[in-house]
Amino acid sequence: MSLLVVGSVAIDNVETPDARRDDLLGGSATHFSYAASFFTRVRLVGVVGEDFPRTHIDLLSQRGIDTSGLQVVSGGRTFRWTGRYQPNMNDRETLDVQLNVFGQFDPVLSDDYRLAKYVFLANGVPSVQMKVLDQVPGCRLAVADTMELWIEQTRDDVMELFQRIDGLVINDSEAKLLTGTTNLALAGHLVRAMGPKFVVIKKGEHGAMFFSEHEMYVLPAYPTSRVVDPTGAGDSFAGGMMGYLTEQDNFDPKTLKTAMAYGILVASFNVEGFGLERMQKISRDDIEARLAEYRQMLSF
Amino acid sequence: MSLLVVGSVAIDNVETPDARRDDLLGGSATHFSYAASFFTRVRLVGVVGEDFPRTHIDLLSQRGIDTSGLQVVSGGRTFRWTGRYQPNMNDRETLDVQLNVFGQFDPVLSDDYRLAKYVFLANGVPSVQMKVLDQVPGCRLAVADTMELWIEQTRDDVMELFQRIDGLVINDSEAKLLTGTTNLALAGHLVRAMGPKFVVIKKGEHGAMFFSEHEMYVLPAYPTSRVVDPTGAGDSFAGGMMGYLTEQDNFDPKTLKTAMAYGILVASFNVEGFGLERMQKISRDDIEARLAEYRQMLSF
Repeated sequence: MSLLVVGSVAIDNVETPDARRDDLLGGSATHFSYAASFFTRVRLVGVVGEDFPRTHIDLLSQRGIDTSGLQVVSGGRTFRWTGRYQPNMNDRETLDVQLNVFGQFDPVLSDDYRLAKYVFLANGVPSVQMKVLDQVPGCRLAVADTMELWIEQTRDDVMELFQRIDGLVINDSEAKLLTGTTNLALAGHLVRAMGPKFVVIKKGEHGAMFFSEHEMYVLPAYPTSRVVDPTGAGDSFAGGMMGYLTEQDNFDPKTLKTAMAYGILVASFNVEGFGLERMQKISRDDIEARLAEYRQMLSF
Repeated sequence: MSLLVVGSVAIDNVETPDARRDDLLGGSATHFSYAASFFTRVRLVGVVGEDFPRTHIDLLSQRGIDTSGLQVVSGGRTFRWTGRYQPNMNDRETLDVQLNVFGQFDPVLSDDYRLAKYVFLANGVPSVQMKVLDQVPGCRLAVADTMELWIEQTRDDVMELFQRIDGLVINDSEAKLLTGTTNLALAGHLVRAMGPKFVVIKKGEHGAMFFSEHEMYVLPAYPTSRVVDPTGAGDSFAGGMMGYLTEQDNFDPKTLKTAMAYGILVASFNVEGFGLERMQKISRDDIEARLAEYRQMLSF
C-alpha cells in the first residue's frame, strides 16, 4: 500500500531567537512525506525549479520516497519561504514568500498514481486540491489540510472541498476562523458538519483533537524541552498519521486514534531540529520508544 | 483524614460575552474547598465581612465543609472581585477589586487545625502563606499556589516559600514569569529546582503538566463545549487533586497522577456554570463517570 501526497516543496530560510538557517528543504508535502516514510512507501507530487538542489532530492529518495512525481520546471525557481519565530517559538512572522513555480502548480498524476487509495492534499489552492481528487476516483481515504488564506479568499471552494474529503486536518486558528467560535470542542463538530467525516484540530504545543460522528477526544503533545524549529510540525503530524493509516490499510476508530498518537510523536521529533535535521537522525525504533513513553504518560 | 485550606473567600461579579452574574460565591479557598469536598472533609480558613450572605456559608456547610475557621469581621466588608471575560473565554480583565477584610487577613489556626497533615495554601501574600506553615509543623503534604503579583512584588518571599513547600501549583504564565522561558517542559523543571518537590503547571483549556525529580507528564483538559465561566477553574483543579490525595492519604507517583486527573475533571465541571452553580448539581458519581470517559479518551 502506498500513500500519495500532493503539495508544496520549498526552500526555507528560518530564523529563531537563537539561530538562522538558510536553504533548508521545506514545504508541506516534504515534511509530510518524510514523516510518513517511517511507516509506508510515499509518492510525492510537487513542483520545483531548476535551482532545487540535487541533495534535497537525494534526502527524500534515501527514505524511499518516490519523487518521480516531482516536476522540475526548466528555467523556473523553487517556492521560497523566509520566516522568523518569536521568542515564544509559536508565533511566527513571514518575512518573504516567493511562490515561483508553485504559483502555477497544476498536478497531473501518472496512470499508476491515479490508482492511489490513500491521499493527502497538503495545504494549497482548494481548486487544485479538487483537481487532484478528480484524478483519484478509487481513493479510499482522502484527507486534506487548508489554511486561513483560502478560507478568507476562496471560502466557497473550501466548502466544496469539505464535501468531497473524508478527513480534514487544520490548525486551531483555522477552526476558529471557519466557525466563528473560540471553543474548540464545539468548533470541531461544527467543521465536521461542513462535510468531512472526521476533523483533526492541531493545537501545536498543546496536542490535537479528533472529531467524528461518534467520537471526540484530545491527545496532548509530547512535551519536548528542545523546540528548535516548529516549521513543518503540522505537516509531519499529518504525515505520521496518514503514514500509519496507510501501513495498517485501515482507518477504523481504534486505528485512527493510534495514528493520531504517531502523528503527535513524529511532530515532536520534527521540531527538535531545523528543517528535517532531527528527522534524519531518527529511526522507526525511536518513534516506537517514544510511543511507549507516551502511552505510559497517559495511563494512570 | 481532613484537608486544610487557607485562602480567599470572596463575592464575585462575573461578566462573560453572553451574560453577567453578580454576588456569586467566589474566592480561591471557596472553589478549592467545594471541589475537594467530593473527596474528603475540608477545613476552610478565611475571612469575610458582615455583608457575607448566610446562604453562601450554607452552601459550603451543605457539602460538609467545616467553616468554623471562617472568621467574620464585625463591621467589615468581604473581598469583592469583578471581572470580564473576553470572547475567547480565556483572557479576562479585572474591572474592580476591593480587598476589604482580606487585606488584613492574618490566619490563626485553632489547636485542632494545627494538626493538619494535608494543607493547601491558596493564592495569597507569601509571608502569610508561610505564617500558616509555621502553625502546621506536623504537616505531611503542603502545596501552594501563587500569582504574578507576588512573583513581581515579593520575589524573595516567593523563593523562601518554595523552599518550604512540597508541591506548587501555578499557571503557565506564572511559570514563564518565574523562569524567563516560554518552553513549559523546561520551565517546570526550572521551577522545581527553586525548591518544591513537585510542580504542576496549569494550562487552562489545554490541561496540566506535572514535574518531579523522576517524572514529567502532561494530561489534556477534558474537552467541554459548555464553557460558561472559567473563574475558579485553577482552584477547583487544585481542590480535586488535593481532595483525592487526602482521601487516599497517599501521594506516591501513581496516586499523584490519578489526583491530577481528578483535578482536571472537577475543573471541567466548574467551568460549566457561573460560580459554583454547576458544581452544586454534580455528585461523586458524575466525576467518576467522567473519569471513565477520560481514561477511555487517553487510551489507544
